[in-house]
Amino acid sequence: MKTTKYSDLLVIAICTLTLISPIYGQTPTVNVLAPAQLNLMPVPASVQIQTGRLPIHSSFNVAVKNYADDRLRAGIARMLTRLAGRTVLTLPADLATDEGAATLVVQCEGAGEIIPSLSENESYTLEINDSKARLAAPTVVGALRGLETFLQLLEGDRDGYYLPAIKIQDQPRFPWRGLLIDVARHYEPMEVLKRNLNAMAAVKLNVFHWHLTEDQGFRVESKKFPKLHTLGSDGLFYTQDQVREIIAYARDRGIRVMPEFDIPGHSTSWLVAYPEIGSAPGPYKIERGAGIFEPALDPTREQTYKFLDGFLGEMAGLFPDAYMHIGGDENEGKQWDRNPQIQAFMKEKGIKDNHALQAYFNQRILKILQKHHKKMIGWDEILHPDLPQDAVIQSWRGPSSLAEAAKKGYNGILSAGYYIDLIFPAAQHYLADPIPADTSLTPDEAKHILGGEATMWGEWVSPETIDSRIWPRTAAIAERLWSPRNVTGIEDMYRRLAVVSRELEELGLTHEKNYGMLLRRLAASENTGPLRTLASIVEPVKQYRRYQMRPQTMLSPLTGLVDAARPDSETARHFTSNVDAFLSDAPRFTLYRSDLERTLAEWQTASRALGPMIDQSPALQEARPLANNLSAIADAGLEAISYLSSGSAPTTEWRQAQLARLDEAAKPKAALEFVVITSVRELVIAAGELPQLRSMTPAEWKKRVNTQATPGKN
Amino acid sequence: MKTTKYSDLLVIAICTLTLISPIYGQTPTVNVLAPAQLNLMPVPASVQIQTGRLPIHSSFNVAVKNYADDRLRAGIARMLTRLAGRTVLTLPADLATDEGAATLVVQCEGAGEIIPSLSENESYTLEINDSKARLAAPTVVGALRGLETFLQLLEGDRDGYYLPAIKIQDQPRFPWRGLLIDVARHYEPMEVLKRNLNAMAAVKLNVFHWHLTEDQGFRVESKKFPKLHTLGSDGLFYTQDQVREIIAYARDRGIRVMPEFDIPGHSTSWLVAYPEIGSAPGPYKIERGAGIFEPALDPTREQTYKFLDGFLGEMAGLFPDAYMHIGGDENEGKQWDRNPQIQAFMKEKGIKDNHALQAYFNQRILKILQKHHKKMIGWDEILHPDLPQDAVIQSWRGPSSLAEAAKKGYNGILSAGYYIDLIFPAAQHYLADPIPADTSLTPDEAKHILGGEATMWGEWVSPETIDSRIWPRTAAIAERLWSPRNVTGIEDMYRRLAVVSRELEELGLTHEKNYGMLLRRLAASENTGPLRTLASIVEPVKQYRRYQMRPQTMLSPLTGLVDAARPDSETARHFTSNVDAFLSDAPRFTLYRSDLERTLAEWQTASRALGPMIDQSPALQEARPLANNLSAIADAGLEAISYLSSGSAPTTEWRQAQLARLDEAAKPKAALEFVVITSVRELVIAAGELPQLRSMTPAEWKKRVNTQATPGKN
Repeated sequence: MKTTKYSDLLVIAICTLTLISPIYGQTPTVNVLAPAQLNLMPVPASVQIQTGRLPIHSSFNVAVKNYADDRLRAGIARMLTRLAGRTVLTLPADLATDEGAATLVVQCEGAGEIIPSLSENESYTLEINDSKARLAAPTVVGALRGLETFLQLLEGDRDGYYLPAIKIQDQPRFPWRGLLIDVARHYEPMEVLKRNLNAMAAVKLNVFHWHLTEDQGFRVESKKFPKLHTLGSDGLFYTQDQVREIIAYARDRGIRVMPEFDIPGHSTSWLVAYPEIGSAPGPYKIERGAGIFEPALDPTREQTYKFLDGFLGEMAGLFPDAYMHIGGDENEGKQWDRNPQIQAFMKEKGIKDNHALQAYFNQRILKILQKHHKKMIGWDEILHPDLPQDAVIQSWRGPSSLAEAAKKGYNGILSAGYYIDLIFPAAQHYLADPIPADTSLTPDEAKHILGGEATMWGEWVSPETIDSRIWPRTAAIAERLWSPRNVTGIEDMYRRLAVVSRELEELGLTHEKNYGMLLRRLAASENTGPLRTLASIVEPVKQYRRYQMRPQTMLSPLTGLVDAARPDSETARHFTSNVDAFLSDAPRFTLYRSDLERTLAEWQTASRALGPMIDQSPALQEARPLANNLSAIADAGLEAISYLSSGSAPTTEWRQAQLARLDEAAKPKAALEFVVITSVRELVIAAGELPQLRSMTPAEWKKRVNTQATPGKN
Repeated sequence: MKTTKYSDLLVIAICTLTLISPIYGQTPTVNVLAPAQLNLMPVPASVQIQTGRLPIHSSFNVAVKNYADDRLRAGIARMLTRLAGRTVLTLPADLATDEGAATLVVQCEGAGEIIPSLSENESYTLEINDSKARLAAPTVVGALRGLETFLQLLEGDRDGYYLPAIKIQDQPRFPWRGLLIDVARHYEPMEVLKRNLNAMAAVKLNVFHWHLTEDQGFRVESKKFPKLHTLGSDGLFYTQDQVREIIAYARDRGIRVMPEFDIPGHSTSWLVAYPEIGSAPGPYKIERGAGIFEPALDPTREQTYKFLDGFLGEMAGLFPDAYMHIGGDENEGKQWDRNPQIQAFMKEKGIKDNHALQAYFNQRILKILQKHHKKMIGWDEILHPDLPQDAVIQSWRGPSSLAEAAKKGYNGILSAGYYIDLIFPAAQHYLADPIPADTSLTPDEAKHILGGEATMWGEWVSPETIDSRIWPRTAAIAERLWSPRNVTGIEDMYRRLAVVSRELEELGLTHEKNYGMLLRRLAASENTGPLRTLASIVEPVKQYRRYQMRPQTMLSPLTGLVDAARPDSETARHFTSNVDAFLSDAPRFTLYRSDLERTLAEWQTASRALGPMIDQSPALQEARPLANNLSAIADAGLEAISYLSSGSAPTTEWRQAQLARLDEAAKPKAALEFVVITSVRELVIAAGELPQLRSMTPAEWKKRVNTQATPGKN
């Protein structure tokens, strides 16, 4: 094997390292469509950049052509408010009366669907030249989508604001692009829902999946059964007027509102008011814990169906969407097993197990929904041969279970891979595809895959923190569901995500600004510097480990450091990338060296400053071990860099000691984990491997370093 | 005169300098009551600190005694939520069933006033020892006030959270402590009002003065005259249900809601719908400008009074408060002068001038209000011999006009001095007293002075910026209106204000967090460092100069640097104080030298970095001259410090050149002004005076420096 000079291999080496980085779950592919200079997210179906630019002055105005209604005019007014806010220009308040005088002409052909629906045509074209922009769409919703693209095109330089000359033809890859918000575990006020609807519209999502009932809360007013919301919600529920307000607000933005009433499990809060439809006698109390609970509706009593006919009928009148979600997940049937009447019923009817009993229940519910002209949607568990073909399966299991259903002719949407409550990085969600490139589905079968939904389960989110759990990561999911399949460049996604994230702040989203607020509260001080440094390189533990490590109830404050810390640390991403480049610069080790040293020194300083801060703020006591780890991490990194730079090899003891300290630091504390440890471990191992360096090819050496650094996986 | 060593005079010198600092309008007096270790604001009437502390654990719970109702229980629940949020402790959700087991016992004697009123007893006592806290109050509102004090007492150290052992007896100095929010110039959404009501309650304000109508908008739904809000509001108004929601929300917090319907002037938006009651034929359009406008109701037509009887009668049914504010300000009568019918009417009735005509109008309105069982309140202009003694004068003119009215037996509240829209520092508002120490009023006359109100006029505030214009400064006004007159220490006020400001964030206030957001939007970047440095030492121009310097309309975006920049720069206050100390350390000049040099160097760096940032962000173009000035200021300061430290005197040319550059920098740009220039000018002049230093006493020298530095007054 030929020995190559290290410096020649820089670019290749960075790519190789990227593959093993824990940030990225899959091989990034090259993004062939997103023009690198633009900040569009989701990337449109087709973009052609032209020469020239359309200046934006205070004379900027809009005309409508062919068709316009209140919804379109309101959408244009919102766009103008945001354009004015960003440019600080006072723009004309009224629409231009004639096309010739307008900077932007919005040509719309019709209202589109009266009630937002799966069959809405969301396509549009946008053409911009030096003097004019033309947005054309068959429907108002298509025009609204185009207005979001228009705003994302705004650029500025010394000559002022402008939009690049461009031709865009755009439509979504999937018709169902949703965000589930669980308002049952924690209630979310109206303004939280509204600002999230604004954010959804900004990234072209079109389904608000409103998870309204749970063991922990019943959040919608029922006029037929008022005890449901009065006894099941701690007073925190949406009135029917508020529901209508949200539906209208969503419709204004081209977003469907699909309610979910999760049955037969996840139903404790229903049974607080109506224990008689439960599978055990009760009494029931609103559940305060997190997890899977036993209470389930009794599927063997006619009273249950009479009740559900009444309630779901009432809700069918309240929610205009064609679909009604009945949940159907995670019913373990323990109450059923213990109820002799239920067991007798099963025996009598020849129902062989709980799965079959739930299928029987679903069949009865299906008839109720059909009576009320609703199509059924539920989680994986509802899939059953008797299910009609217009039902939809929402898959938390994954694309292959979805593909299986599709082969049987069932429609499905993907949520596995989009569980944003599990705190995985955007890159991981981004690469989850409802129809992966290697799909076994025929094109006709693939049509059954309608799209997907991000799921914001509500156990650990409050009105203060929910935005930071949804955004900006959900924008990457929105792109996956809208843009062509081959738009998969991770780096460019992150670049654009940062821009979109800022733009979402215009809409009232608090994902960015509440970070500082929570840190100020924890530090009990304006001066949060050291705490911010720590928080910037830790992330909440992934999956369901938070509850295991740091149990709380639904009544606990969500104001700890774990709540302030955010998923998908940008600081860690940059650090990782700098370490990769630095190691690829062997044996000189100069690339990014001073950046790395400065960063590591900042960690040391922060670690020292954190002690007194924690002393004064008992809420931070749980972070003390992290503060100590921070100094260990910084020391290890700085010493390793010093060895590498000087070319002198450390002792084996040093290496062992550092790795042991890093292993200790890698253990989560306060439900937080450092996300820079793999990189620091690479530095330590690389320093230890210095003597071997000259006898190996860079590829061999790098592989050796990486292999040894990865086991800890942090 | 004896020559004293400079260093001996340090403390005195700082005090002397404070007197001339432009930040403080009046001589600060020593605060004799506020215990320096506590963060209470407003300072209670009587505080005795005891030995010991009450630890706060997750077992902390509350019992109620004697009287409790839903309002009290909700108040306790809100307190618990904030206590939990701050401590990250999961506290018991339910009240303790017996007093013995409770950490805090709330002993209340009765509901108090059913409708919040001027005669509400707001007093309470709070006693805390090692094992228990007892809050006692005659009314629920008194208990709510005490709960706020309780929360403000929370402290933390290595041993955990605790409250100090203490005895507090407290009641307000004035019964009327208000905040006017003008929602007419700019509409403010419900959540803005709610969070501000929360903040008001936190600092014990008790009147929300809801300025609902203006030339620029009619913001309340009228079912009798629906054209008023449909034509006069751009669709931005409060429904009557929303009004009731705000009234209930305020009442829950012991806050009165007093509506203002400003007549006969300030009424353009009324006349858009009903030109027939105007003094000129119309048609009228909603006013978009700022200033005083001509439209006024026609006081000579019976139709006007019939209309107002209908409308004010409807509002009297909607708003339960005893008072109704009829404005009455700034009607210049130009429409009256030009209307022959009005002139004929005046002649016929012997009404000699417009003032008399308005008095006639007020008399008619008074009868309408009396018919609807409301007491009248209006601005200074309504004062007239025929006014009944239960009316209230709200004074924008000042304490002496108020005292004059009081001598005639009229009740009054002070707003002059509390115009928070004028961007003066908190210290200035803080020292405005409704009954100054040198009052000429007898104790009986003084009883007519009911209190005061901060006024948030709405020309230049949006939902994004309004909190930063109200808070934290209004907390200082709240203290003036609640605490004993002799609580006037500026330094301690600012220390506590910073704590209260952070605590207000718990209630959803955005005054702190929207600062960063607006800067990010302006910079179109996460990295706002240099812009933040600039913004931290400029303030919006004071009084009404913003509109003169940088005219906008009510439809303009409020997202410029002037909107991001905040009143009462803390950075400037610290800089001023450091310069004072440094100069007092003559002739050594070592005190705070390195701090000052670091700060000035940071300004230099920021100035350089701002250029490229502004290039990319046209919205910042208007800030370019400020960026250039920043470098001139920093250079002048650094050079002056260098001369002073080295003891070598600069040339006269240097001094002249620097002062000229500072004079240039002192000119406001983009409606912003530097608030550090006086201090830098002192440095330059001091350097220039170095040769004279040895022949003068420190007092002489300092006086000489100050006298020469002040003329520019920036």
